[in-house]
Amino acid sequence: MIFIDACFKKPTPYTPVWMMRQAGRYLPEYMAVRTKAGDFLSLCKDYKLASEVSLQPVDILGVDAAIIFSDILVVPLEMGMKLRFEKGEGPVFDEPIFTLEQINALDTQKAVKNLSYVYDALSLTREKLPQDKALIGFCGSPWTIATYMLEGKGSKNYAQSKRILYENPELLHSLLDKLTQTLKLYLEAQIKAGANALQVFDSWASALEKEAFFEFSFSYMLEISNFIKQNYPHIPVILFPKGVSGYLAHIKGDFDVFGVSWDTPLELARDSLSQHYTLQGNLEPCRLYSKQAIAEGVKEILSIMKGKNHIFNLGHGILPDIPVENAKYFIRLVQESSAL
Amino acid sequence: MIFIDACFKKPTPYTPVWMMRQAGRYLPEYMAVRTKAGDFLSLCKDYKLASEVSLQPVDILGVDAAIIFSDILVVPLEMGMKLRFEKGEGPVFDEPIFTLEQINALDTQKAVKNLSYVYDALSLTREKLPQDKALIGFCGSPWTIATYMLEGKGSKNYAQSKRILYENPELLHSLLDKLTQTLKLYLEAQIKAGANALQVFDSWASALEKEAFFEFSFSYMLEISNFIKQNYPHIPVILFPKGVSGYLAHIKGDFDVFGVSWDTPLELARDSLSQHYTLQGNLEPCRLYSKQAIAEGVKEILSIMKGKNHIFNLGHGILPDIPVENAKYFIRLVQESSAL
Repeated sequence: MIFIDACFKKPTPYTPVWMMRQAGRYLPEYMAVRTKAGDFLSLCKDYKLASEVSLQPVDILGVDAAIIFSDILVVPLEMGMKLRFEKGEGPVFDEPIFTLEQINALDTQKAVKNLSYVYDALSLTREKLPQDKALIGFCGSPWTIATYMLEGKGSKNYAQSKRILYENPELLHSLLDKLTQTLKLYLEAQIKAGANALQVFDSWASALEKEAFFEFSFSYMLEISNFIKQNYPHIPVILFPKGVSGYLAHIKGDFDVFGVSWDTPLELARDSLSQHYTLQGNLEPCRLYSKQAIAEGVKEILSIMKGKNHIFNLGHGILPDIPVENAKYFIRLVQESSAL
Repeated sequence: MIFIDACFKKPTPYTPVWMMRQAGRYLPEYMAVRTKAGDFLSLCKDYKLASEVSLQPVDILGVDAAIIFSDILVVPLEMGMKLRFEKGEGPVFDEPIFTLEQINALDTQKAVKNLSYVYDALSLTREKLPQDKALIGFCGSPWTIATYMLEGKGSKNYAQSKRILYENPELLHSLLDKLTQTLKLYLEAQIKAGANALQVFDSWASALEKEAFFEFSFSYMLEISNFIKQNYPHIPVILFPKGVSGYLAHIKGDFDVFGVSWDTPLELARDSLSQHYTLQGNLEPCRLYSKQAIAEGVKEILSIMKGKNHIFNLGHGILPDIPVENAKYFIRLVQESSAL
């Protein structure tokens, strides 16, 4: 698989490419399945439909890897928290975490068992996926998942989570540790179900100042990565802490691929990190509104990464109103122009 | 004025300090005036009340500078756009900008004239403010103001503004140019009314990838700054593009102070910029929830900036639920420990 080769810094005939949130609302075929499923969570829990939408971007766009369709918040859901998705509001936990008692009540074993719909979706997808395409499993970072559990919903400034961080850091560490232990087992089960690579999404890394990022987020991501690399060295681990361009000089540890968000100049990430890691990224997702902007962005990124280990991707998820034609153009352009 | 001296890199007996959004909801005295005024916009438009709340943090906390109480969106409001503030939703323009015709209809002269309530608030505040305290006038950056005019309201990803940026950059440049010409005259009038220093807030700088930031935001901020520095060299100009830690190496131009947001490691900003500029910032605002976190943060920042030109501030606005006692502790701690 060219994607896996790139993760492990082996030579590839062209730069492999996929898109975060590629199984998503910009695809009419996804919308059709989503409508059939009912709501978002029902789609996550129906392994056949989840597998179907995971495969769509491979068939329709020709991306080099599928990522399993799911959501980072199925983990706290199956640990025992009540989760609902509200239109326009996003995910909501009606009973956010305030106490150690609540944290102790979260059930790791139950979660790892109940998440079988994710494992089933992975197995079915791996079975149907062409042999040369990789299947990516994933989870949210402990910090990013914790922010939702602490805020109760998406937040503009994560003030509640950070209030706890500064007022009661031990409580936050307890929650992060519980999540970390759960996520290790969750990712292990994903490997056993057929995942060829794993990505840890730290979408709210940028909510943390430097010291706090390394203490409360990155260290837990590394703990997860170390566990995978020690036990499953053939499975590449991708870490994606979003928006940490100021912290690049301090990133180190045992993982394979560093995901670069669009706000980080790729030349900075290259100079700091590409000696040790394959870099993944980082086209600004809004460039997909315009073919000219795609062409200019792809050309620049390929030029910056020339001779370095690189997986092409957007620098964040694809937006719902991107024309499918432009997404196709992007994927084809990367594959063709990097092969020259 | 110690604040102005620090802007101009003159020695000061201690590190001057103020807080972004210091005239704000965390102060009971502010809430009392706000209730008297009715809604937020009415408070902006009542120059006596606006002046009263601008002075409160100087009296209550002993900060070294007052910033005039206003909002960056009074400019598009007075250029002719209908603006309302919705509870929980923030500012809303019911008729966002889509066309050149709409941009051409925006009225610079009318705005500069109608904004007299801001100038009156500045004059009254300067009159009442102790001689050793500076008065800061401000505006939003053209890009940041434009995002509101294009999105119609606050946005999570600025997709509409960036769609225009990539699809129709000329239209965006027209809007930014119109705003820039207006803001020059607006800031000039603020100087004439008594402002001792000016800050340009680019709150949504971080919505732009590097090239786009310099083309669509920073160049316009510099145009404004150049105009001020050429005509009013005794007035320091502070630029505050939030969240650009990856772009520091490319920041240059004619201004005096660079505002560092909390997400930017201060040592990076110091190494890139403090040879040419005074740095302002950058305590993580959530540290104000805890006195211990304040003490640790203040100590570290003073140590990083030792021997360099520095104005202490938060790295973003103070949050509404910060205890006043902690804000007082922060201000006093900076003034006392930097004097040693």
